[in-house]
Amino acid sequence: MSASRIVYLNGEFLPFEEARVPIMDRGFLFADGIYEVSAILDGRLVDNAAHLARLDRSLGEIGIRNPHDSAEWERLQTELVSRNGVTEGLVYMQVTRGVAERDFGFPPADTAPTVMMFTQAKTVAANPLAAKGARVITVEDLRWKRRDIKSVALLAQVLAKQQAVEAGVSEAWMVEDGAITEGSSSTAFIIRGRTLVTRPLSTALLPGITRASVLRLAAEADLTVEERLIPVSDALEATEAFYTSASAFVMPVIEIDGRRIGDGTPGPLTRRLRELYLELARAG
Amino acid sequence: MSASRIVYLNGEFLPFEEARVPIMDRGFLFADGIYEVSAILDGRLVDNAAHLARLDRSLGEIGIRNPHDSAEWERLQTELVSRNGVTEGLVYMQVTRGVAERDFGFPPADTAPTVMMFTQAKTVAANPLAAKGARVITVEDLRWKRRDIKSVALLAQVLAKQQAVEAGVSEAWMVEDGAITEGSSSTAFIIRGRTLVTRPLSTALLPGITRASVLRLAAEADLTVEERLIPVSDALEATEAFYTSASAFVMPVIEIDGRRIGDGTPGPLTRRLRELYLELARAG
Repeated sequence: MSASRIVYLNGEFLPFEEARVPIMDRGFLFADGIYEVSAILDGRLVDNAAHLARLDRSLGEIGIRNPHDSAEWERLQTELVSRNGVTEGLVYMQVTRGVAERDFGFPPADTAPTVMMFTQAKTVAANPLAAKGARVITVEDLRWKRRDIKSVALLAQVLAKQQAVEAGVSEAWMVEDGAITEGSSSTAFIIRGRTLVTRPLSTALLPGITRASVLRLAAEADLTVEERLIPVSDALEATEAFYTSASAFVMPVIEIDGRRIGDGTPGPLTRRLRELYLELARAG
Repeated sequence: MSASRIVYLNGEFLPFEEARVPIMDRGFLFADGIYEVSAILDGRLVDNAAHLARLDRSLGEIGIRNPHDSAEWERLQTELVSRNGVTEGLVYMQVTRGVAERDFGFPPADTAPTVMMFTQAKTVAANPLAAKGARVITVEDLRWKRRDIKSVALLAQVLAKQQAVEAGVSEAWMVEDGAITEGSSSTAFIIRGRTLVTRPLSTALLPGITRASVLRLAAEADLTVEERLIPVSDALEATEAFYTSASAFVMPVIEIDGRRIGDGTPGPLTRRLRELYLELARAG
């Protein structure tokens, strides 16, 4: 949070300290909004077209008009990244249903959506955690039923991640009916032999952008993909495990609920997938 | 929204137009906050001690420190109501986990919660809808699993209420596993003969403050209380139905999913309960 940090809010590039939203913003009162996060690597946006497509889809699912087409979004993102001089990190985008007197139903159709973006500079490629491997715990999945929508109604995810923090680990994998749905802010994968396993898409989980890229890269790592439910017991017996997200890329998991996965270091196939993903990301 | 409307934000009484929160407020980014609403009738707060107790409980459940004790809350509420000259309507209170760089886990323990309050002047006692009776539809309950916590993660409720608006009715009753959980912003009741039926408290619904008062008043209306699940089919065959909330008080329901309840006008026992509740509310 340097003094010169610039954020985007409703058409303006503003100093971070001045960027505020009215208390009647529906994002603040009702979690009535959508967000996306794209990574920045070597100064370029990673998988950004897919993130913008998912933003458009999420907005459509809850009936918020997308205020920009993808070209305009990318122009705004690029300008924000440039103004902040970020070469590695992420750009966060949020759109809410706008500002209106508090009432559960939608406000008048001409209510302008609130559009907000900020950047975070951070090391994403040479993340030390990727070298060491992450530990995860499993927690109950408390979320609503439309997890395919990337909404800002994130309280369940906050509580899940906080359980991870308090357990001294990096991520919480949420469990419903005995199977892992996904991480609090990531997609869960396991490897058994040469089989890469992840949960199939449904309303129970977010259609991960990095997830999709990794599935496309599996063949290059000589992995067969199996999309099926992952019982916790399967995860504990995996030969390797990892999670993906826009900013974690492919993050090796070395321990689940205190049980060592493989030899307790990042697995070779996971490391290979991370390399392949970073190559892809860098190639733009 | 008159020019002189005053809201409360973090220790200050501010003109409505100036009340803004930083984009990094966790209420705006994560729905990481709690709210309450108390009605104002004859210039006095209704059932306020119970609302403040529930606020304290909700905050505790998600690990946000309650910034005020009940006496201080009531002092602030009373001052806000007085400054706005509201004699009938409601006072809304919201507490979030405060402002911090975006990260799912809790911010440092010394992060100050955001405290916000506003009033809405509206007719709550002589509400014309109460004389006419409300129509409701049933919708799927999409919410998370901790509905006993009154959090601002309200997107599912917003979408439910909007379905009601689009159907031209007043409220949506949410249904899970064939039974009504509660309304999008109210508690559901039916009457069969002299039996008042509502769902028992659990994590599946909010412990309604008006609900509790109405249950205590049932004996005065010669009603026996039965707390059990309400299958939709039972609701459609009810002799009377109504919903309760801090601002709707006891709202007669005359139609569910297009099916007339009783003779299609507010039922006599429901009207009696509304009278009894208003007497209680006015008695303070």
